[in-house]
Amino acid sequence: MSAPPGDPRVSRTRATVLGATSKLLLEVGCERITIDEIAERSGVARSTIYRNWGDRSALLIEAVEQLAVMAEPPDTGSLRGDLEIMAERLAGQLAEGPLGQVLPSLVGAASFDAGLRGRLRALAEHRFAISRSVFERAVARGEIDDTDVGGRLERFIAPFFTRHLLHNGPVDAAFRDAQVEAALRSAICSEPTAGL
Amino acid sequence: MSAPPGDPRVSRTRATVLGATSKLLLEVGCERITIDEIAERSGVARSTIYRNWGDRSALLIEAVEQLAVMAEPPDTGSLRGDLEIMAERLAGQLAEGPLGQVLPSLVGAASFDAGLRGRLRALAEHRFAISRSVFERAVARGEIDDTDVGGRLERFIAPFFTRHLLHNGPVDAAFRDAQVEAALRSAICSEPTAGL
Repeated sequence: MSAPPGDPRVSRTRATVLGATSKLLLEVGCERITIDEIAERSGVARSTIYRNWGDRSALLIEAVEQLAVMAEPPDTGSLRGDLEIMAERLAGQLAEGPLGQVLPSLVGAASFDAGLRGRLRALAEHRFAISRSVFERAVARGEIDDTDVGGRLERFIAPFFTRHLLHNGPVDAAFRDAQVEAALRSAICSEPTAGL
Repeated sequence: MSAPPGDPRVSRTRATVLGATSKLLLEVGCERITIDEIAERSGVARSTIYRNWGDRSALLIEAVEQLAVMAEPPDTGSLRGDLEIMAERLAGQLAEGPLGQVLPSLVGAASFDAGLRGRLRALAEHRFAISRSVFERAVARGEIDDTDVGGRLERFIAPFFTRHLLHNGPVDAAFRDAQVEAALRSAICSEPTAGL
């Protein structure tokens, strides 16, 4: 007989499975992890795992989301202050945090798994939507105009991710400062580009 | 008796192995590909493969380099013209080319393989160095000043790669235009950011 929904045993089982999945994700990555290993490591039956998550990619992404939980975006009262904090946090999460450790492997596994790909997209879009508020508050304060807010955020954060995923440069203080300065400069610039 | 260096049989063998590796890379990705499979698919002995490449990651990266060969950067005479062509080419390579197909899997495999990671870095840095010339020629023509040329290139191309790797948006004409416009605007902007 299976436990009714809301039963504390169900929560405990889910937490146990997610904990084992997170550890395995960090050890072997998304592509090599199997439900068999997760069952063995957690001591929870395969059938219970499938009943709770439906499929492997749903479980993997829930474990990644737990590993890479995102703090509320900063709200220092200035775009510069907020971007400096975002840059430092993101650099830390990628260089030392579980997000940085698991993301490359998730990217790789997603390229051969449409379910995982859809969930990676949702995860990226969710984090992106949260971070937009930093630029939206700067617009509301009148610091910058509302042109291409999503693009501004993207050009600010994308190089952090490419440096981490492609290894083509350190995410150090000089890099972070250059990204903050470029985002500020571009946000206040109103000169026409027609001559170029 | 092994063939002497420069022997045309050696070139043929290398080409056969590289061709089989490329096909397998596109089919199963970097993480799952094995030397055994490459040997079977190419009909070339494992020992010959190891003699020619030393290790698996050297062979994989050479196959990736062949798949993702980079054209000379555009030289239209204006930064705008060059960026438009770069944007279109890069979008095409990522959306439809072998580079886009194999890169996510290379990113994933590199996270658990230090040899592959070093080679991915070298590949990214090589492609980056080639593309810098577009901004360097704009500096030489006097279109833009020489501030942070590498950073300008990085903010221009990184969002193409993150959209491809994280799936958080289409690499369509509107996106490409916004990236070109942002790179131009930022390149000519000289307003101080001290007030922000």
